[in-house]
Amino acid sequence: MIAPSILSADFARLAEEAAAVQDADWLHVDVMDAHFVPNLTLGLPVVESLRKATEIPLDCHLMIENPDRWAIGYAEAGAHNVTVHVEAAEDPVAIAKNLRAAGSQAGLSIKPGTPFEPYVELLQHYDTLLVMSVEPGFGGQRFMPEVLDKVRVARRLVDAGELRVLVEIDGGIGADTIEQAAEAGVDCFVAGSAIYGAEDPAAALTALRASAAAARG
Amino acid sequence: MIAPSILSADFARLAEEAAAVQDADWLHVDVMDAHFVPNLTLGLPVVESLRKATEIPLDCHLMIENPDRWAIGYAEAGAHNVTVHVEAAEDPVAIAKNLRAAGSQAGLSIKPGTPFEPYVELLQHYDTLLVMSVEPGFGGQRFMPEVLDKVRVARRLVDAGELRVLVEIDGGIGADTIEQAAEAGVDCFVAGSAIYGAEDPAAALTALRASAAAARG
Repeated sequence: MIAPSILSADFARLAEEAAAVQDADWLHVDVMDAHFVPNLTLGLPVVESLRKATEIPLDCHLMIENPDRWAIGYAEAGAHNVTVHVEAAEDPVAIAKNLRAAGSQAGLSIKPGTPFEPYVELLQHYDTLLVMSVEPGFGGQRFMPEVLDKVRVARRLVDAGELRVLVEIDGGIGADTIEQAAEAGVDCFVAGSAIYGAEDPAAALTALRASAAAARG
Repeated sequence: MIAPSILSADFARLAEEAAAVQDADWLHVDVMDAHFVPNLTLGLPVVESLRKATEIPLDCHLMIENPDRWAIGYAEAGAHNVTVHVEAAEDPVAIAKNLRAAGSQAGLSIKPGTPFEPYVELLQHYDTLLVMSVEPGFGGQRFMPEVLDKVRVARRLVDAGELRVLVEIDGGIGADTIEQAAEAGVDCFVAGSAIYGAEDPAAALTALRASAAAARG
């Protein structure tokens, strides 16, 4: 699965930018509040408009403080998956239950410096594990290969049936990094500049998908 | 002057929404961070895209905490006017100087419950006074006529040459409220739903401008 990130798109033409990647599995939407991360991108009113503008399932990644209060609004706005950060969540079990009750999948994200093991139990309540492979906040950063250790552990647990999550990765994914991420066991790849920075975003998406599929074997 | 607010526009098609009001004096951009106000709208990356998509001067209204850190980025992104809230600013004189040095006008906003008099001295450093006529945070709210007392005091000081600011008002401005605001002395009217909620935004803008001009006499 490939999830183009609109963080690298033209924010004045989001409907067109979504249409340019209509073959995408998910459209990744980076919500930042200038508090959890040092950038302010977009919030609920933009997601509401985007939901009406595209059929692509929206994958909302909330890099915000107090997701306990705000996450549910994104589910109610029709997001397909809503991911919160474990570092920001006060009651992540309640968040997951509320998201699912509102009709969305629930995702849990961990920053590059956050370990994976303490959250295996918690992830029983979640549908998606989003492993950050850059420090969240900005597009166009360099991939951090060391986070793939966490992906490998998650993959083993999923394959052993001990965990049921989709393993997603976000940060620095492109033609030169997607294969190692796929080999480590990623299911869903967020790609921003590698897609929207390309001359032909649709072709870049297709090429990334092919590389990942070949590497996963 | 009329400044349509994109808070009531389609966020997936901002370039088109700007083109629909191309006769606007300013385009009002509501930046909210889910901390200073209980809503998260859009931030710098969206303003950067919008700046390339329209020739209309951007009037960025920062309803955010810590404008001391963030305001300058909007000026550097090419905003024509950047307004911060006096309730959020730590060193509003420094902010105004930095904004002007970066090539933007500097605006100071006061919430409905914030008095005007204590800030007359401070406003010597500013180009715009934005009087909020609703509690900031959401579009479509009811106009609070009691804030017009602050507008009248500001108007008197400006007409007497004791203050040099443009007097702007934001919140609940439409066909039924613009005349009383104009009579009180407003120079620039922000209008969201009254313009973007209308069948013909350009016609709504023209009508509002005519009403204001007639009432100002």
